[in-house]
Amino acid sequence: MEDSLAAAMRSAVALAEQVRGSTSPNPPVGCVVLDAAGLPVGEGATQPPGGAHAEVVALRAAGERARGGTAVVTLEPCAHHGRTPPCTDALIAAGVSKVVYAVADPNPVAAGGARTLQSGGIETQAGLLADEVSKGPLRAWLHAVKHGRPHVTWKYAASLDGRVAAADGSSRWVSSAVSRAEVHELRTRVDAIVVGTGTVRVDDPALTARAADGTPGARQPLRVVVGRSDLPEGARVLDDTAETLLVRTREPAEVLAALHARGVVDVLLEGGPTLAGAFVAAGLVDRVLVYLAPSLLGGGPVALGASGVSTITEAHRLAVEEVTMSGPDVRISAVPVRN
Amino acid sequence: MEDSLAAAMRSAVALAEQVRGSTSPNPPVGCVVLDAAGLPVGEGATQPPGGAHAEVVALRAAGERARGGTAVVTLEPCAHHGRTPPCTDALIAAGVSKVVYAVADPNPVAAGGARTLQSGGIETQAGLLADEVSKGPLRAWLHAVKHGRPHVTWKYAASLDGRVAAADGSSRWVSSAVSRAEVHELRTRVDAIVVGTGTVRVDDPALTARAADGTPGARQPLRVVVGRSDLPEGARVLDDTAETLLVRTREPAEVLAALHARGVVDVLLEGGPTLAGAFVAAGLVDRVLVYLAPSLLGGGPVALGASGVSTITEAHRLAVEEVTMSGPDVRISAVPVRN
Ligand SMILES: NC(=O)c1ccc[n+]([C@@H]2O[C@H](COP(=O)([O-])OP(=O)(O)OC[C@H]3O[C@@H](n4cnc5c(N)ncnc54)[C@H](OP(=O)(O)O)[C@@H]3O)[C@@H](O)[C@H]2O)c1
Ligand SMILES: NC(=O)c1ccc[n+]([C@@H]2O[C@H](COP(=O)([O-])OP(=O)(O)OC[C@H]3O[C@@H](n4cnc5c(N)ncnc54)[C@H](OP(=O)(O)O)[C@@H]3O)[C@@H](O)[C@H]2O)c1
Repeated sequence: MEDSLAAAMRSAVALAEQVRGSTSPNPPVGCVVLDAAGLPVGEGATQPPGGAHAEVVALRAAGERARGGTAVVTLEPCAHHGRTPPCTDALIAAGVSKVVYAVADPNPVAAGGARTLQSGGIETQAGLLADEVSKGPLRAWLHAVKHGRPHVTWKYAASLDGRVAAADGSSRWVSSAVSRAEVHELRTRVDAIVVGTGTVRVDDPALTARAADGTPGARQPLRVVVGRSDLPEGARVLDDTAETLLVRTREPAEVLAALHARGVVDVLLEGGPTLAGAFVAAGLVDRVLVYLAPSLLGGGPVALGASGVSTITEAHRLAVEEVTMSGPDVRISAVPVRN
Repeated sequence: MEDSLAAAMRSAVALAEQVRGSTSPNPPVGCVVLDAAGLPVGEGATQPPGGAHAEVVALRAAGERARGGTAVVTLEPCAHHGRTPPCTDALIAAGVSKVVYAVADPNPVAAGGARTLQSGGIETQAGLLADEVSKGPLRAWLHAVKHGRPHVTWKYAASLDGRVAAADGSSRWVSSAVSRAEVHELRTRVDAIVVGTGTVRVDDPALTARAADGTPGARQPLRVVVGRSDLPEGARVLDDTAETLLVRTREPAEVLAALHARGVVDVLLEGGPTLAGAFVAAGLVDRVLVYLAPSLLGGGPVALGASGVSTITEAHRLAVEEVTMSGPDVRISAVPVRN
């Protein structure tokens, strides 16, 4: 039984991962329903805002087979009336005898699901694969609930010597085709992409999630341009492939507050050195994702501009989370070490 | 039998690796002698210049047990009279019936060992673990023979954003204690450490190989300072812990010619951005070894200065050889892709 629960939770994590980027401000959750014999009879993931929650989708698929079975879900089921009725009601009505979840709901409004289930005579078990879930599909959402602002991943591509463009400003392409495809995939999983007006002026990027052949994906993250100046007429970021928000400030905290108010949970910061420096200086970068190309430039802008450090002991300290190859490039994921 | 030969060659590689850095201009070679039954009965490695070669050391240890046995050696035995008599003579005199070597001698003067052995009635086998040897202990020596100049590893330690020091010039310590210890170990394996006068002025490094407690190792590489200006009085590089060579030029090729003339085979370039840029621009860096610390600086000198690249398509292209962790740091080894 233990093994089938873990396997079901692993499926639930994968289901959640598939909808990441389409559920904000709701959490991307996955659920697998097992029948009384422990066999999977239904699965589901959070639908876009206003749609059904993962548990409800999975219970519908399971139908009568859910009775006496177990619901395995990545997040503690909600017990409150939001835009949809509480999942705890649906679980009790379906007659499951047990609910296994990975992570407790940190949200003071939604929390209490486990207790409600117990009052309804359902056994509950918490913590299965909690680490995998909280560092995986729920990472940004848990962060947003805890800190009241979106999770920020600063992503950049640089040469081995840290340049994001050559001396003449040219930067197509610093990194490999494999890495660029990975970034487009990444974009489909976030709520917003943020750059500064400088990047728009120099690179005129489309900031959309596109397939290798250039076709834009069905779902596009919000494009956000930060800075006081007007954008050049005809800038690609102003086309109608995706929505674009201009935030006319130089304050990273104001940018995140504006995005939080719009329900943005997960931000990909793809700005140039100036905007990245401002976010790092403000302590508003939660993860650094670097694609290091095996090339040397010896000139051109460096990934990070002024970020409030003048001497070595003031360096912003990180810890490496993961190092992998992305085609010919080295991909490093690191998180700030906060004391 | 095949397995005992591979095992013996692996030991020979390890023996060679142990003397790397103490044999130049001779190659660091390892040798294991097996008796007629295939059991190891003697091992040896190249002694410092003027001393015995690996084969001779191993044969001495084996004594009469070498008769009818096999000598397993990382490099084709030499057949010429240098400062020591030819190893082929020693192998024939010892009565071994077979010689197995990894890499053929590329040196036109010394080559021909296999043929001499065959004429002496000894069976020869070439190529066993050739790749391991040519990328391992013989890498720099093979390069020096082929190109007529030392092999150059440019090593630097930088923050994730590519800075080798903070805005105020402070750089102690960009990288971790683990990485620094690794660099001291690395220094004991090379013939010379090269920096520019700028690094001496700013950092006043000792450029010696030291243990964690600061004790200098028994063998010290040559310290080389490149540049036209005089060094500050009392610079540590001028102390008597190791020999120091001042090369009063700004031409990397001249530096390498001077070192080649002194029998230097393996160079560790530890200079600042200016000297590194000059070496890279001249195509005289054969390997880049980076210790990337998980920290962000956002200011200060970048690892590589002007290196002749003005636009992205002119970037010096490398290929990543190896990525490993060095304590908290990411260690990347890359080699130029030459077309
Ligand atoms: N390789 C990569 O991953 C990558 C990614 C992005 C960009 N780049 C390169 O980066 C270069 C552009 O660099 P950049 O630094 O100009 O781009 P940026 O950081 O995207 O934009 C800079 C602009 O942002 C505004 N801004 C926002 N907050 C600010 C603050 N706190 N302080 C100052 N200004 C702030 C300013 O515009 P206002 O004057 O309008 O206020 C500033 O000029 C290009 O060469 C591009 O190719 C590379
Ligand atoms: N983190 C690390 O791995 C690391 C390692 C080394 C240095 N650093 C940092 O690098 C900084 C020093 O940088 P740097 O660039 O001044 O050091 P450098 O490259 O070691 O020395 C520069 C000097 O080398 C001479 N030189 C030799 N060839 C040259 C050429 N082709 N063109 C121009 N000059 C040439 C010039 O001196 P003359 O005027 O005498 O000719 C020049 O001033 C310091 O902040 C230090 O901390 C960091």
